[in-house]
Amino acid sequence: MIAVRNIKMTLAYDGTAYHGFQVQNRTGLATVQEELEKALKALTGEETPVFGSGRTDAGVHARGQVINFFSETRIPAERFPLAMNSILPRDIVVWEALDVPADFHARFCARRKTYRYTIYNDRHHLPFWRHYSYHVPVHLDIEKMSEGAARFLGAHDFGAFCAKGTAVENFVRTIYDCRVEKKGPLVRLTVTGDGFLYNMVRIITGTLLEIGENKRPPGDIPLLLQAADRQQAGRTVPPQGLCLWSVEY
Amino acid sequence: MIAVRNIKMTLAYDGTAYHGFQVQNRTGLATVQEELEKALKALTGEETPVFGSGRTDAGVHARGQVINFFSETRIPAERFPLAMNSILPRDIVVWEALDVPADFHARFCARRKTYRYTIYNDRHHLPFWRHYSYHVPVHLDIEKMSEGAARFLGAHDFGAFCAKGTAVENFVRTIYDCRVEKKGPLVRLTVTGDGFLYNMVRIITGTLLEIGENKRPPGDIPLLLQAADRQQAGRTVPPQGLCLWSVEY
Repeated sequence: MIAVRNIKMTLAYDGTAYHGFQVQNRTGLATVQEELEKALKALTGEETPVFGSGRTDAGVHARGQVINFFSETRIPAERFPLAMNSILPRDIVVWEALDVPADFHARFCARRKTYRYTIYNDRHHLPFWRHYSYHVPVHLDIEKMSEGAARFLGAHDFGAFCAKGTAVENFVRTIYDCRVEKKGPLVRLTVTGDGFLYNMVRIITGTLLEIGENKRPPGDIPLLLQAADRQQAGRTVPPQGLCLWSVEY
Repeated sequence: MIAVRNIKMTLAYDGTAYHGFQVQNRTGLATVQEELEKALKALTGEETPVFGSGRTDAGVHARGQVINFFSETRIPAERFPLAMNSILPRDIVVWEALDVPADFHARFCARRKTYRYTIYNDRHHLPFWRHYSYHVPVHLDIEKMSEGAARFLGAHDFGAFCAKGTAVENFVRTIYDCRVEKKGPLVRLTVTGDGFLYNMVRIITGTLLEIGENKRPPGDIPLLLQAADRQQAGRTVPPQGLCLWSVEY
């Protein structure tokens, strides 16, 4: 009898060239999942589906995306990263592979996720950052943004911070950490939660930017959470500033 | 009478998509100089040549390249950056423009240049750094590399650190600063000198890497400088790790 293994992999990717993580129904759109499945087929000969911890949108990056897949391969887990990286395009890099119990599922077992949104806050955008940050040329009040960020901590209904038309029933998510830090021209929002709604980090960032631009006070955050009305929250900032930083199990 | 102005501009570019800074004789190869001249023509209506502080090779980046050009335009210098950036491709960004005396020349008046070479020293290459760093997966002894770097300080014949076949007569250059620093997986060589020979920073880096890998001692540097033999120095590391950091006048 051949044992079926469940393998967990951690990977980073530059989302610039991809139409997101997940395989699309339409053809012709490259996705990270597809590249991973192609590489696994080349390596193991098997057509095995890859389960990601969650989708990332077109243009969104990952430093620590986690996936799992089932395989009968005899390749030792520790040899997977180099073997996969020799096949994968250079904008996808596997960091780690581990054998995990059969009931591990990258999506359903995720306990906490951390996202980071990067803003390039200077008059001109440094070209090296154009695919990895959102350019904001106006002055930002970082203290006020931090004050606003802290108001997201705890369990709240995030209905105001979710793209409309999302098919979920429960909008309550718990935020464990939400911080804004500035280092030179880079302003970074790091947010850790038990889960995220569609576009949630990008709308949180858009709202904190309005606070940083003194268009609204930090005290608006509790009101927005209470009203749960998407219309009242800030804009959805563009995808290239967003990075799935890590997933905890 | 229309006054001819001499305008100095400082710019950053991502060299990934370009065949270097300087216009090639062959056609069909995009260069940064060409993009600048096209943008200037669109902005001023003039066909004016752009003088750079020096060439950068294909794939090499710049954070602070300096150029100058002559123009009869009446556009105020301070309005040039935004006007140019609205025309230029997004991988070239003008930071500053200034009116300078007629005898200023970006190349001939340069007194000091600083280059930075970035090494990504970890088992796997983070995909966001693939165009901006050289991946070295083996352990590097940073102290030994720093010790080697310090041996470059002062005026020396850099014949051993220059690509063969270069048509220069004087190989003596003065190095004012040469430092290796590590921050997380990033190892950076920063070198300031009164001028640089062809491939000089890339060969210095290649030689320091051999020191970091314990393949040769830091004491080799004075011997290499004395021998002035290209064959005895280290390899030329790839272009994407190199960035023209700043030019002083």
